[in-house]
Amino acid sequence: MLTKIKFTTLKRNELINITSKVEKIVSDSKIKAGECIVYCPHTTAGIIVNENSDPDVASDLLRALEKMVPNIDFNHAEGNSDAHLKSTLVGCEKHFIIENGLLILGTWQSVFFLEADGPRERKVYVKIMSD
Amino acid sequence: MLTKIKFTTLKRNELINITSKVEKIVSDSKIKAGECIVYCPHTTAGIIVNENSDPDVASDLLRALEKMVPNIDFNHAEGNSDAHLKSTLVGCEKHFIIENGLLILGTWQSVFFLEADGPRERKVYVKIMSD
Amino acid sequence: MLTKIKFTTLKRNELINITSKVEKIVSDSKIKAGECIVYCPHTTAGIIVNENSDPDVASDLLRALEKMVPNIDFNHAEGNSDAHLKSTLVGCEKHFIIENGLLILGTWQSVFFLEADGPRERKVYVKIMSD
Repeated sequence: MLTKIKFTTLKRNELINITSKVEKIVSDSKIKAGECIVYCPHTTAGIIVNENSDPDVASDLLRALEKMVPNIDFNHAEGNSDAHLKSTLVGCEKHFIIENGLLILGTWQSVFFLEADGPRERKVYVKIMSD
Repeated sequence: MLTKIKFTTLKRNELINITSKVEKIVSDSKIKAGECIVYCPHTTAGIIVNENSDPDVASDLLRALEKMVPNIDFNHAEGNSDAHLKSTLVGCEKHFIIENGLLILGTWQSVFFLEADGPRERKVYVKIMSD
Repeated sequence: MLTKIKFTTLKRNELINITSKVEKIVSDSKIKAGECIVYCPHTTAGIIVNENSDPDVASDLLRALEKMVPNIDFNHAEGNSDAHLKSTLVGCEKHFIIENGLLILGTWQSVFFLEADGPRERKVYVKIMSD
């Protein structure tokens, strides 16, 4: 079962919480036990799993990732080399476990789409596999 | 097949080798070919695959990750923003291949739990899927 | 279905595009829908998914990762602690979705092997699972 989530990002750097969208896909699938891949097909974005409870965590992560981009002369001429690097660091996919019909997430975990070169139209693939 | 590994971490920053625990779960499952997800449900911890042979590699990784945390004013007030960042960088899960009843790991690879905000009670989910 | 890709890297730091090799394995498998794990068994290398269209992106990523390695006294005596760190940051595996007999990749995405301690003989495991 493969589903596409589409959305528009609003800022250059942004963390968009897609947890409820992924959980709805799992719930709609009626699958009791299995796995779930969340895959980002963009090279200037990625998938992060971290805390959503305090929104400062997400904004801190964005600022920390920005600050980690080293000050080198990037040759890539599109001005988004920082975004390619951030995408590489956080990765384009995360893999989740489904148990009792639910995505296993820790108490404080949410699934975020990292936008690093917005605003843009973006999409994420969610694939569900039954045991 | 879903199993929970529980353990107590002893330091703020620590790499705990969980390879033998994961391998025992694979072996107990009697599955000959398939895959294995190791999933960390915490937002200040993660899963790393790297060298265990020389213990200096693990301690170097801990010190390098610490040094990589940029010097910004984190807004998150719990004093563990560095841990949320490290968790984001190393990721909350790793996916392994099972072949001939064994986890495929390189000669020098071990599976580590990265504790970045200990000491704490922690857990890791291990899910085995047969082909 | 498990396949091994073998190749020789030529430089200390290098990004090797293995997309066509992975796509051929998917195509040869005749599987219409499922998933694909690309697993690197080395602790001084990893798997990256990013842009191949402009080769400057790959060379920028290599230089940025190099620059991000912090200037600490590494204790590991083999002189490749930077490579262990890079491997930890980019990760040893990526997981892909197969749909309509094809690997789902974004328009600009390619699958790269990150060599961080070459030149060497290297290998990558590719596992295909059908739905």
